[in-house]
Amino acid sequence: MAEEKPHCKVVLANSIAKSLLEEVHDGLKKIDRKPLLVGFLSSADPAARVYAEWTGKTCNENGFAFELREVDRELLEDAIIDANNDAKVDGIIVYYPIFGNRQDQYLQQIVDVSKDVEGLSHRYIFNMYQNIRFLDEHNQKKSLLPCTPLAVIKILEYLRIYNTILPYGNRLHGRTVTVINRSEVVGRPLAALLANDGACVYSVDIEDVQQFHRGEGLRKRRHEVVEKPGWTLENCLPLSDVVISGVPGDKYKVPLNLLREGAVCINFSSERNFSPEVKEKASIYVPAIGKVTIVVLLRNLLVSKR
Amino acid sequence: MAEEKPHCKVVLANSIAKSLLEEVHDGLKKIDRKPLLVGFLSSADPAARVYAEWTGKTCNENGFAFELREVDRELLEDAIIDANNDAKVDGIIVYYPIFGNRQDQYLQQIVDVSKDVEGLSHRYIFNMYQNIRFLDEHNQKKSLLPCTPLAVIKILEYLRIYNTILPYGNRLHGRTVTVINRSEVVGRPLAALLANDGACVYSVDIEDVQQFHRGEGLRKRRHEVVEKPGWTLENCLPLSDVVISGVPGDKYKVPLNLLREGAVCINFSSERNFSPEVKEKASIYVPAIGKVTIVVLLRNLLVSKR
Repeated sequence: MAEEKPHCKVVLANSIAKSLLEEVHDGLKKIDRKPLLVGFLSSADPAARVYAEWTGKTCNENGFAFELREVDRELLEDAIIDANNDAKVDGIIVYYPIFGNRQDQYLQQIVDVSKDVEGLSHRYIFNMYQNIRFLDEHNQKKSLLPCTPLAVIKILEYLRIYNTILPYGNRLHGRTVTVINRSEVVGRPLAALLANDGACVYSVDIEDVQQFHRGEGLRKRRHEVVEKPGWTLENCLPLSDVVISGVPGDKYKVPLNLLREGAVCINFSSERNFSPEVKEKASIYVPAIGKVTIVVLLRNLLVSKR
Repeated sequence: MAEEKPHCKVVLANSIAKSLLEEVHDGLKKIDRKPLLVGFLSSADPAARVYAEWTGKTCNENGFAFELREVDRELLEDAIIDANNDAKVDGIIVYYPIFGNRQDQYLQQIVDVSKDVEGLSHRYIFNMYQNIRFLDEHNQKKSLLPCTPLAVIKILEYLRIYNTILPYGNRLHGRTVTVINRSEVVGRPLAALLANDGACVYSVDIEDVQQFHRGEGLRKRRHEVVEKPGWTLENCLPLSDVVISGVPGDKYKVPLNLLREGAVCINFSSERNFSPEVKEKASIYVPAIGKVTIVVLLRNLLVSKR
């Protein structure tokens, strides 16, 4: 008998975005006007412009107003402050990189917390690492999460990797996840979020491997980070049911021979970190996540209005 | 700060049985009369009588008629044949052990396939091992599965271990399961069923460890069995996200130190194979399954009438 085709399910960002958009449409109905998202483009990076155009298109198609403000980078700080003070503006997104150095982080903190739909304000980031999920004492106002890590989480929920039979906050209990990339923007916050939800996470970068985890039986309220001296992907990948990779550039490929048979593989790099043969071993493969990230931005805007 | 309580979710058979009963009630509505289940009790085993009483109670509470026929074991063969030929009888269950030897297996095969709600007929068992899911060419009539292994599968579905985003037949792809016990009645068929659904299963008994699996990428149509020479629980448990144990007697305990943190633990022995400390390490723990098994019996009866 001829061998059958591999049984990997390829899930495209589009299908996941669609299911999230339904939630966004429901949220919109509860608001009496069209929310206005303002985007600031001061970046010379062509990818930033493409991302801005995508945002505009997604807004227009889904009942949001979008205004792109192209500003000289030296005038950007004042322009953001004006938008902070303008009651007509509901959300602000700034397309990075601009200066490409620490001045970009300074600009991120200029955006008013109540309009920061990217979830990059220090208060949000602090709450995220501390596993504090609400802004107020009565657990009414949710603390936003940074867009790209949140997009990965929404994908894991869609893929039923989050087990809804477990209590909220522990739904990844028993999952082992490897995250390849430990940038401050995506990799490190993502590892923290997954560990706060109960997963055992191996965070891998070019230098070393760290384990993020809440301890046996999830006894700790938030994750702790432990160095794994001498560890590499050879140690983490064979243990991991989920592998999430976001290495920039087109050279890097996840070594498929180390992958656990039936692993769930998600790529958040703009390049493909998994070669096509991943489908012969993975149970689920998500090749890109960009479209989900933009919908998460709109969702964050609605959550911040509640 | 004081350490928090362990976060294991204990799921009782009752809650799972309830959700299955809803399905059974829906199925009953499609039938124009009250189905009759006949139970044959020729066993001196007090556990058999208890199980018979439970069956009767569950039938009466849920719209089924139940008739218990107590028959001398030497007359049982003829009594089963009479029930086979009686159009009023919809399903037959025989409480074992009776002779406690191969004659019991002979009696199992006396029950007509169309009335065998326990799913023990050779044709059903053959289909199960061969991963043939229907009795007819047009995939209209489902081939029944043996009650107790099917109860475990229904529990794994309830616990969302079966991932419904994956296609039917592959929903355990990527899961690693250890089944402790390889009896012909439960352990071996269960290992086969789980592997046919895509899991990598380690089947453990006192003698050895066998791996049941459909191969990398689930290329094979049905599982194959590979001996794992020299393997013990020390090799399987640390790899397994799900541990299912059914060792008879009150002496045996699963060695918790070998358990993967956050594993799902299910006990199908009438004794407790997991000591209470399992809750400090498992994400989900199901201490007993008996009540689910009886509901599965009623479900099998309805499926066989379709």
